[in-house]
Amino acid sequence: MGINIIEGGVTAAKGFEAAAAAAGIKYEGRTDMALIYSEKPCKAAGTFTRNVVQAAPVKWDKAIVKEEKRVQAVIINSGIANACTGEEGMGYCQETAEEAAKVLGVDSESVLVASTGVIGMQLPMDRVKAGISMLTYLKKSDMESGTEAAKAIMTTDTEKKEAAVTFEIGDKTVTIGGMAKGSGMIHPNMCTMLSFITTDAKISKKALKKALSEDVEDTYNMISVDGDTSTNDTVLLLANGQAGNPKIRYGTPEYETFKGALHYINETLAKKMAGDGEGATALLEAKIVGARTKEQAKVLAKSIVCSNLVKTAIAGHDANWGRILCAMGYSGAQFDMEKADLFFESAAGKLKIIESGTALDYSEEKATEILSEPEVTVIADIKEGDQKASAWGCDLTHGYISINADYRS
Amino acid sequence: MGINIIEGGVTAAKGFEAAAAAAGIKYEGRTDMALIYSEKPCKAAGTFTRNVVQAAPVKWDKAIVKEEKRVQAVIINSGIANACTGEEGMGYCQETAEEAAKVLGVDSESVLVASTGVIGMQLPMDRVKAGISMLTYLKKSDMESGTEAAKAIMTTDTEKKEAAVTFEIGDKTVTIGGMAKGSGMIHPNMCTMLSFITTDAKISKKALKKALSEDVEDTYNMISVDGDTSTNDTVLLLANGQAGNPKIRYGTPEYETFKGALHYINETLAKKMAGDGEGATALLEAKIVGARTKEQAKVLAKSIVCSNLVKTAIAGHDANWGRILCAMGYSGAQFDMEKADLFFESAAGKLKIIESGTALDYSEEKATEILSEPEVTVIADIKEGDQKASAWGCDLTHGYISINADYRS
Repeated sequence: MGINIIEGGVTAAKGFEAAAAAAGIKYEGRTDMALIYSEKPCKAAGTFTRNVVQAAPVKWDKAIVKEEKRVQAVIINSGIANACTGEEGMGYCQETAEEAAKVLGVDSESVLVASTGVIGMQLPMDRVKAGISMLTYLKKSDMESGTEAAKAIMTTDTEKKEAAVTFEIGDKTVTIGGMAKGSGMIHPNMCTMLSFITTDAKISKKALKKALSEDVEDTYNMISVDGDTSTNDTVLLLANGQAGNPKIRYGTPEYETFKGALHYINETLAKKMAGDGEGATALLEAKIVGARTKEQAKVLAKSIVCSNLVKTAIAGHDANWGRILCAMGYSGAQFDMEKADLFFESAAGKLKIIESGTALDYSEEKATEILSEPEVTVIADIKEGDQKASAWGCDLTHGYISINADYRS
Repeated sequence: MGINIIEGGVTAAKGFEAAAAAAGIKYEGRTDMALIYSEKPCKAAGTFTRNVVQAAPVKWDKAIVKEEKRVQAVIINSGIANACTGEEGMGYCQETAEEAAKVLGVDSESVLVASTGVIGMQLPMDRVKAGISMLTYLKKSDMESGTEAAKAIMTTDTEKKEAAVTFEIGDKTVTIGGMAKGSGMIHPNMCTMLSFITTDAKISKKALKKALSEDVEDTYNMISVDGDTSTNDTVLLLANGQAGNPKIRYGTPEYETFKGALHYINETLAKKMAGDGEGATALLEAKIVGARTKEQAKVLAKSIVCSNLVKTAIAGHDANWGRILCAMGYSGAQFDMEKADLFFESAAGKLKIIESGTALDYSEEKATEILSEPEVTVIADIKEGDQKASAWGCDLTHGYISINADYRS
């Protein structure tokens, strides 16, 4: 069964509403709070940062997801991360949830919270509360409201990030939509990747959790901007069952369809974050083929997109393949360089650079042309098996330095 | 017994000579080859890159050090790394050693080789051979010849890196001197950290090897410029026994004296490399105290100096302590943020920023003053024990991008 790509984001699925508000939390003259609301309580799955320093909202959400509470709203703010804020920060999560519960008429334990921005500052709770009231008035199920929410959660992002698909289960159309912000899971100073996925699928708790946890490994966990894993990273998946489809259960063909659709959303949002990495001018994909195991392919691919030297070479449109082999070499994965082929590919064409470990007499001019596109792919065939993996990152430019050398001030 | 810091480098110890030559291997108008020569055959210890892609000279030297051959000369070139050069590259190591053996009148298996520069290019052997003849004519035991050698091995380095000490064993003065190049063990595009240490100590093979392998973990392996581990990283330690001291054996008080002196040389050269990282304007030291284990302290310290976000904050003289806690959090080491104190220190003073996980009302102005010095230290006291460790890195600036985005072209 096919997957249809449609326009939209978190309001694409039935029964979901969204809104954005300008609460003046840290930014002036722009929206900085967003609400996702479901008419009906949702099953929720989540994955969270592995950083041992975890922001207060991460702790709040983890507890709710773990206790399998039904979720009906997510309150998100940009500007302040509510990380390294101690007991006070945890208290603010509770206050936020209680305020939202009151105005939305739901249970406070059905409210998830998420924050992104500067670490160590406390939230101005009076403004947050005013924002929550505003969001409640404004929430709507149209596409535009989803898009406004996607804009409100941006920090150093230069583009809003949304994706949506539909597919059939039984004779019912099921929709998954999502929005995200951030420039990496392994991630820049604004200290957060946030991704929110909504679906009207009727699905078992186990299938929902498995689909998310399995797919995160191949999507969000395969992007990198700068190697800094945030204190706030959060992916939330809410399912309200409004599509009326026969319930999707783990391990069935319908589960595979659902997971395939979710994968499209996750990969699309992950690539948007990588390509919109701070200061980036290009999305860099590293694709390893011919690997013995998928794990080996993933380690090699990720090492390439994490290398500052590969990233600066891409910024300079320089076919500096030595840096790519070097990054594969120190990745921790074994491979035989003498067997490897290397290619560069983009909209401008495909070029073989290395054959069996030896540089070919390729055209530097053509290579530069290929590397000057906004999306470039490095392909390494290590000829040991049939496993493959991709990782995504971006180039490293003066823009990154400018954004981060004086961000907080 | 004390250690006396003296001027000089690889020619400080008795019986060692050095020279530099301009062979035009890749650079014009500067020296690009160096020789270290010992009148008497030396015991040699070495540590090499863990990158699975290893340059030809690394393979050559590893074999000689492993077979415990006596070493009498090291031929070094800058400009071309002789990495990813296949069988041809290995052949060039042999040709280099044979040519040096012929003109110096030594055995070809007593000649070590080292290269640093661009990956993937082949060496112009006619120029290398002419350079070897020149080096043989020019070699001398004076301090200046050591310094000239230290300059010839530079690539993107902005300063030559030398250190030397003397100490007493029995009634004899023993000397250790060294030179290095590079901007990190975990390292930039020129793809190499090289360090060469000479000593006239009479020392057992086991003591020599142990002293180097143990100390490398606390010095060269604790610096980082950009996370890229080179294909060529090499540390060589040569001992010719000319000091005439009673032989130093592993595990004795004399061994500890020797190791302390060697540590000073290694730490000094390592810090010089970190502080001279590509585009760097400041040396950054991260010092973890109050750790439960040394390993925990090392992992936390290294994570701080490896963080692009901490590095850009230092470039901006910005007391962005959230990024430091974040980097400690994702390091992989456990610690309790709620117990940690954090300080900034430099020649401009010392300031406590965090006490027991909570930000103090410190002066941002004073913090910026401290962070504007050319050497800054971040101290984290995690209050779990009495172990400590330091790591060294540098700030991340526009200069790094400029150097690396168009280096090869």
